[in-house]
Amino acid sequence: MYFASDNAGPAHPKVLAALTRANETYAKAYGEDTIMDAVRTQIRSLFEAPEAAVYLVATGTAANALTLASMAKPWDTIFCPPTAHINEDECNAPEFYTGGTKLTLVSSEDGKMSNAALRKAIEAEQSRGVHGPQRGPVSLSQATEKGSSYSCAQIAAIGKTAGDFELKLHMDGARFANALSFLGCSPAEMSWRAGVSALSFGGTKNGLLGVEAVVLFDPQIAWEFELRRKRGGHLFSKHRFLSAQMLAYLEDDLWLDMAAAANASSAALAGAITACPATELVYSAQSNLLFFNAPRRVHKALHDAGAVYYLWNGEVDNGPVDETLTGRLVCDWSMPQADVAEFVALLEALS
Amino acid sequence: MYFASDNAGPAHPKVLAALTRANETYAKAYGEDTIMDAVRTQIRSLFEAPEAAVYLVATGTAANALTLASMAKPWDTIFCPPTAHINEDECNAPEFYTGGTKLTLVSSEDGKMSNAALRKAIEAEQSRGVHGPQRGPVSLSQATEKGSSYSCAQIAAIGKTAGDFELKLHMDGARFANALSFLGCSPAEMSWRAGVSALSFGGTKNGLLGVEAVVLFDPQIAWEFELRRKRGGHLFSKHRFLSAQMLAYLEDDLWLDMAAAANASSAALAGAITACPATELVYSAQSNLLFFNAPRRVHKALHDAGAVYYLWNGEVDNGPVDETLTGRLVCDWSMPQADVAEFVALLEALS
Amino acid sequence: MYFASDNAGPAHPKVLAALTRANETYAKAYGEDTIMDAVRTQIRSLFEAPEAAVYLVATGTAANALTLASMAKPWDTIFCPPTAHINEDECNAPEFYTGGTKLTLVSSEDGKMSNAALRKAIEAEQSRGVHGPQRGPVSLSQATEKGSSYSCAQIAAIGKTAGDFELKLHMDGARFANALSFLGCSPAEMSWRAGVSALSFGGTKNGLLGVEAVVLFDPQIAWEFELRRKRGGHLFSKHRFLSAQMLAYLEDDLWLDMAAAANASSAALAGAITACPATELVYSAQSNLLFFNAPRRVHKALHDAGAVYYLWNGEVDNGPVDETLTGRLVCDWSMPQADVAEFVALLEALS
Amino acid sequence: MYFASDNAGPAHPKVLAALTRANETYAKAYGEDTIMDAVRTQIRSLFEAPEAAVYLVATGTAANALTLASMAKPWDTIFCPPTAHINEDECNAPEFYTGGTKLTLVSSEDGKMSNAALRKAIEAEQSRGVHGPQRGPVSLSQATEKGSSYSCAQIAAIGKTAGDFELKLHMDGARFANALSFLGCSPAEMSWRAGVSALSFGGTKNGLLGVEAVVLFDPQIAWEFELRRKRGGHLFSKHRFLSAQMLAYLEDDLWLDMAAAANASSAALAGAITACPATELVYSAQSNLLFFNAPRRVHKALHDAGAVYYLWNGEVDNGPVDETLTGRLVCDWSMPQADVAEFVALLEALS
Repeated sequence: MYFASDNAGPAHPKVLAALTRANETYAKAYGEDTIMDAVRTQIRSLFEAPEAAVYLVATGTAANALTLASMAKPWDTIFCPPTAHINEDECNAPEFYTGGTKLTLVSSEDGKMSNAALRKAIEAEQSRGVHGPQRGPVSLSQATEKGSSYSCAQIAAIGKTAGDFELKLHMDGARFANALSFLGCSPAEMSWRAGVSALSFGGTKNGLLGVEAVVLFDPQIAWEFELRRKRGGHLFSKHRFLSAQMLAYLEDDLWLDMAAAANASSAALAGAITACPATELVYSAQSNLLFFNAPRRVHKALHDAGAVYYLWNGEVDNGPVDETLTGRLVCDWSMPQADVAEFVALLEALS
Repeated sequence: MYFASDNAGPAHPKVLAALTRANETYAKAYGEDTIMDAVRTQIRSLFEAPEAAVYLVATGTAANALTLASMAKPWDTIFCPPTAHINEDECNAPEFYTGGTKLTLVSSEDGKMSNAALRKAIEAEQSRGVHGPQRGPVSLSQATEKGSSYSCAQIAAIGKTAGDFELKLHMDGARFANALSFLGCSPAEMSWRAGVSALSFGGTKNGLLGVEAVVLFDPQIAWEFELRRKRGGHLFSKHRFLSAQMLAYLEDDLWLDMAAAANASSAALAGAITACPATELVYSAQSNLLFFNAPRRVHKALHDAGAVYYLWNGEVDNGPVDETLTGRLVCDWSMPQADVAEFVALLEALS
Repeated sequence: MYFASDNAGPAHPKVLAALTRANETYAKAYGEDTIMDAVRTQIRSLFEAPEAAVYLVATGTAANALTLASMAKPWDTIFCPPTAHINEDECNAPEFYTGGTKLTLVSSEDGKMSNAALRKAIEAEQSRGVHGPQRGPVSLSQATEKGSSYSCAQIAAIGKTAGDFELKLHMDGARFANALSFLGCSPAEMSWRAGVSALSFGGTKNGLLGVEAVVLFDPQIAWEFELRRKRGGHLFSKHRFLSAQMLAYLEDDLWLDMAAAANASSAALAGAITACPATELVYSAQSNLLFFNAPRRVHKALHDAGAVYYLWNGEVDNGPVDETLTGRLVCDWSMPQADVAEFVALLEALS
Repeated sequence: MYFASDNAGPAHPKVLAALTRANETYAKAYGEDTIMDAVRTQIRSLFEAPEAAVYLVATGTAANALTLASMAKPWDTIFCPPTAHINEDECNAPEFYTGGTKLTLVSSEDGKMSNAALRKAIEAEQSRGVHGPQRGPVSLSQATEKGSSYSCAQIAAIGKTAGDFELKLHMDGARFANALSFLGCSPAEMSWRAGVSALSFGGTKNGLLGVEAVVLFDPQIAWEFELRRKRGGHLFSKHRFLSAQMLAYLEDDLWLDMAAAANASSAALAGAITACPATELVYSAQSNLLFFNAPRRVHKALHDAGAVYYLWNGEVDNGPVDETLTGRLVCDWSMPQADVAEFVALLEALS
């Protein structure tokens, strides 16, 4: 029962098979491989965005930081929630790549920025000439780091707010597939039609070895992105091995199948948590990860039974047994149904 | 006959097999995978450097720039030859990662810095307090971008010069394996025993999909390197897929076998070039790549016969047929013997 | 009645006279002038800090950003209140000079960080290895941008909190003189004895043309500071003209006399505001600037009578006459007593 | 006889008088002072450039680095001679402010880039997509750091070369006045009419306390420059004291009178050096500084007689008496005629 991270799971066998196929011949380096041509075509088609510029990098931090650096000026501030990966988990990568942009933290309850708070934050960064930071892009995560997903309408509202101030909207889509699978909308609806101008389209957490696509719906920043990617050391010489992963991901909707599987596992866990009187969900479970509260003794029992996951605010073995602690459960595409069933059964036994 | 780049060749099947094996279970993310433990142990043993800090990244530019940034201060200048990859082929990555270090170009004839020129360059960067750049690390490539390799004595001499000024020595070993195979010395002799304090130990050009090890013989900069790697977006969540490549590379001396094969192909081409009256080597061929001069009509004939390679200073089809042009031939580990033989035969036919 | 800014007032005539004296002969450039020797000696003596490194720059932003860059690493976060000049008024200068440090905003009510909130913020930046930003220096302003001053005990408490986590404490002392004059303590008590390791010791707002001293009680970062100052373009060739200003500032306690004069003007205004039923102080007036609330019609009357100052949250002529607005009054050293008296009389007339 | 540096001389008394006049009242801060309005108008008129954006900073390094950062992208390389101040004397300030731009050194004999060498250098930075640095602005110094001055035709030729590649031309005019006085042309001819798009118009070396104007003939980069100036800490709050210096500089051609005086002193020294068989000029003396060769014993005699200047390649007291050493003589506007005459007499006595 490994619920610690979707970074810990395996890649899909079809992805490995694609690597083997891509390995057969000589191929042009640095993104000029023919597999990348197919990736580009497929992503443009998938997003109904024939003009979009499409690039591949190997990590989510690279995708986010390179994209934001191409969208923001060093004297800007980027608007995002405190829980954003770019704020909490990238060791100041955005500040580094942008050359010193600030992040303005917009309050949020469940990982999602409220549109009203965003508008207030933008307005508060009132124009004072050169003295303060300048208003820069808005960045949201879909799904969020708390497991919630914005509805398309919510994204569109944020996109409109950004647009009212002539600001661009960036989406950290490390779990784009999970949010899309949850919402059941189209990739276009959940991105550029809602005002997103640049997207980190994640693959690593959803069954790849390590590939994220950057989709620039505004191709005007494409050349700058390419230069930043190169000087950031993120342009792969044997690029075909990134392309092959992404192509396998897209073929026959493998990416959606994997996301649906992960979400289904998560939903089953969420159902059991809600049903169990000793446990409760912290946020709506709207993707493949969830947070839940339980007394320490419950966490202890679950851990002892073999469930692996992180506690957010304490240790299993150290503190009062009745103290409420928050645990995070993440399901990846490969989560065995038996593990899910075992966890559900454990909770049922607690009731 | 694909001699354009060692970045264009396939990965070794054993490397792909290792990926498949690594894919079987859940594994800790971000470099805490058990395969990495084995990599660390093996590299320390291989280099007879039990204290060395060892990290994996996916590109040579990342390896070089992150390492140099951990060695240099922003107000330093790094001493390197004009032909260095860090100068010519990384779109200012070292300047970016270091926060503004300068490169002082030390003249060289065949890609190798002359030790005398290095000393002169360091001395010329005379101390003028805060006004000029400060003397920073020395960086050399082994093998060089021109196909030559420093002898261990030459490296040691450069290491001594650097040491005389209390400067550190960095080695860009994107083709470390090829140089080592050519020289027949030990990894320790060609690195820290000769004064190298940090090494980019390449794998990508020599049969991996995309992995370079950074070996810090001076582990004092290890923590800084780790932070720079993370904020540079170069820390892989599914790190085991880097580890697995590198472990397969090291097992049973696969890396040396591949380098030896590539060097042998290159040596065969070099022999034929020397024997042919119409062609001549530009530099000594001491690894897996070489440069040769020939009249345009010879290049034309070779290209027409199916040899793929870059011309350095002109186009095959555009100019006087007798004009001398320089071509670059690179052999990778997988180069078919038949292709080598065919190229040799083409040159023999020209004689 | 010019209460808009202490940046708008003149320099003291003694300071101009010192410039004329300093102009008489040739003098060594770049800080090697003999006047600087005297400045260094006097500041060390004044602060009872014989080992302190002392430098001069021309702007407060330069003083703060260069100092923080010498104290923090690019992957750190700096703890400061939201109202800090380094957060609100330097167009991301700290982020620029540090190479991408983040600022963690510690809540405050009157411009002063609460020690409890600081401790909580530091703890919340829990160690998560390389993923999050690393804990960096703490920075406070004395006096604050809201006109309040920390007591020496409050600074010492913050210094202790920083020290508990092995963090350094920086003081933005753009109005150091005003706070010191208010508190009546010694410069050492208000700085290094309370845990401050680096200080921007302001002069520009208090009667100089444009000079701030940087006092590094921890001289280990002095050489780095010198290099950063030079490459930031902040090392003056005709440095003696900075030195001469600072020397005149220190001689015969001119700096304290000017601060006392400014504070006295401010205290008189504060007294009248408190006495007047239509106006109230927002924060304690503990230096030379204060914020006060009043209905728009009161602000209108004051403006119409010739008082020049900024409103923080609205316009004098645009809105309901009874709406409460906040005004800021700043007194510089040269504030004519007649102007103060006139403002006081205006308020009295309103009662 | 103080020939060590034009940074060591005094400011002109009229400049100090202007500071006193500017000190009389309250004035708006941050460049909104009325004196700056006059400066802007005068510089636009002087340069016959009514659209030019004009700013003041306090150091030449700030002027150069902020301007180049507004002209170049971080992935560019800036073309300049090895002797350029931006290369040798700014501790990597351009690299810092640009976020990692490289400098490509164009060979020069006397501090002036040869146009042919420049063209060759630009061509050599051939387009290789994202791999190498991109071609960035060209930067020249007028007068050069070797005392030579480009003719207007030479500048125009360089401007044309830059333009042929769509590159911008920057002029470091720390000694603009001296070159202009030497050439006898108009400011427009020596700048934008010759293709210069941005100019550092120096004042500090020519009689000011510390002010350089930045003249952007291409005002499109003006806003970016303003933001960079602020976040670089180079926007003065009491800006009027910069404005007042520059206005005094321009009034009644004070700047040209001072430059003419300095040049005349230098020409007198150059004449004596040429006439004396023991000494010879190294470069043409075309401004207010010159380099000359002489045996050590001659330098020794001059130093013993009270001449203060730097030797470039050795020490006065340490080495063979007949060894040829290079000395640098710099005359500032205030150089007493008696000192010049004394030096000339010393050389005549040597003949």
